[in-house]
Amino acid sequence: MKLYSMPSSGNSYKVRLLAALLGLRLDIRDVENGSAELAEARAEGRLPFGKAPVLELDDGTLLPESNAILWFLGEGTRFVPSDAVLRAQMLGWMFWEQYSHEPVIAVRAALRVYPERAAQATPERMADLLDRGHAALDRMEARLAAHDWLVGDGPTLADISLHAYTHTAADRGGFDMARFPGIGRWLERIARLPGYVGLHG
Amino acid sequence: MKLYSMPSSGNSYKVRLLAALLGLRLDIRDVENGSAELAEARAEGRLPFGKAPVLELDDGTLLPESNAILWFLGEGTRFVPSDAVLRAQMLGWMFWEQYSHEPVIAVRAALRVYPERAAQATPERMADLLDRGHAALDRMEARLAAHDWLVGDGPTLADISLHAYTHTAADRGGFDMARFPGIGRWLERIARLPGYVGLHG
Ligand SMILES: N[C@@H](CCC(=O)N[C@@H](CS)C(=O)NCC(=O)O)C(=O)O
Ligand SMILES: N[C@@H](CCC(=O)N[C@@H](CS)C(=O)NCC(=O)O)C(=O)O
Repeated sequence: MKLYSMPSSGNSYKVRLLAALLGLRLDIRDVENGSAELAEARAEGRLPFGKAPVLELDDGTLLPESNAILWFLGEGTRFVPSDAVLRAQMLGWMFWEQYSHEPVIAVRAALRVYPERAAQATPERMADLLDRGHAALDRMEARLAAHDWLVGDGPTLADISLHAYTHTAADRGGFDMARFPGIGRWLERIARLPGYVGLHG
Repeated sequence: MKLYSMPSSGNSYKVRLLAALLGLRLDIRDVENGSAELAEARAEGRLPFGKAPVLELDDGTLLPESNAILWFLGEGTRFVPSDAVLRAQMLGWMFWEQYSHEPVIAVRAALRVYPERAAQATPERMADLLDRGHAALDRMEARLAAHDWLVGDGPTLADISLHAYTHTAADRGGFDMARFPGIGRWLERIARLPGYVGLHG
């Protein structure tokens, strides 16, 4: 299986992390932001929604969307609970990640990190993203203050998905992570999973 | 099972539509935008992420996120393909719905429909949302011009999820649906499914 993967992106990293935890070898094709490789993959129709990551199966079938790829690789493994209610709660956190976490926390990080985005980083926008990011992190803290994992009592795809942009929220996003000690312990717990890799390998 | 449901909201409507198609009776609790009932449900901790819809199981377990509720109710029914690849593609469309469709198409509709949002509906913002909405609809049209359904050859949760804000994109959102004849035929196909209900029942 081939993974079109953006090295600097948390959405692509999620998939690389799950593959590492599962000991799964993927044929990684780097398509960095703004690169010729990204433009080429897009022009060749390998990115159904125009974005990375995309998993290409051996028969050429294309699977876009980071969390759907996690599902595909994770189904039947220890990272997907066998209980139907826990499975739905896991997916609930993953939809929330795409709707309420990534568009705030990853977007604020991108505005700080990529020079070409700097013009859009107005003080009002950065302050609003800071508040909304802290509010999103509050939701995670409400769970993680008293539980080891987001769902049930072991790591699931929800933890892997939300780890991606949470573990860089301080450095890249400028969020005040000292306010969220439960999240801090959870990040360490994930980093200790056998096979763990960070954003840059 | 109890559904905290916002009558005017497509995210809540998705769940009502699936329940109707499955002939499933839910105990519906209306929590309209800005209502005392919404504030009360939130204050009583019935909305884990602060938003509707939420499904409350008979033992009190709470399931937030519209698409995760669809999954919970749909698993094991004809609306979830038994093939693992189709299932992942279905989830791919549903994550895309939350990331690239709803935040554009539902948001533009809300800015036009709710008087209290009018101040935020600047001409630049409305024009940008119009362009991005048409681009999202182009992605659906690329599939639906030549296929009856988004995934495989029968209706799935992806069709139900994306129907919600697509079937009101012209009236409420101001999008030019004449440009998307494949989407038009697909909307009619969904409206003919036995048990179908519209946004207002
Ligand atoms: N909802 C998608 C989002 C993917 C996404 O936004 N990818 C970005 C990088 S983080 C991308 O490919 N950007 C390149 C571009 O738009 O040109 C997912 O979770 O996979
Ligand atoms: N990602 C969530 C979005 C839910 C959502 O945004 N709900 C809105 C109505 S469409 C809501 O509850 N708004 C009330 C509020 O925020 O006060 C889902 O799909 O369920």
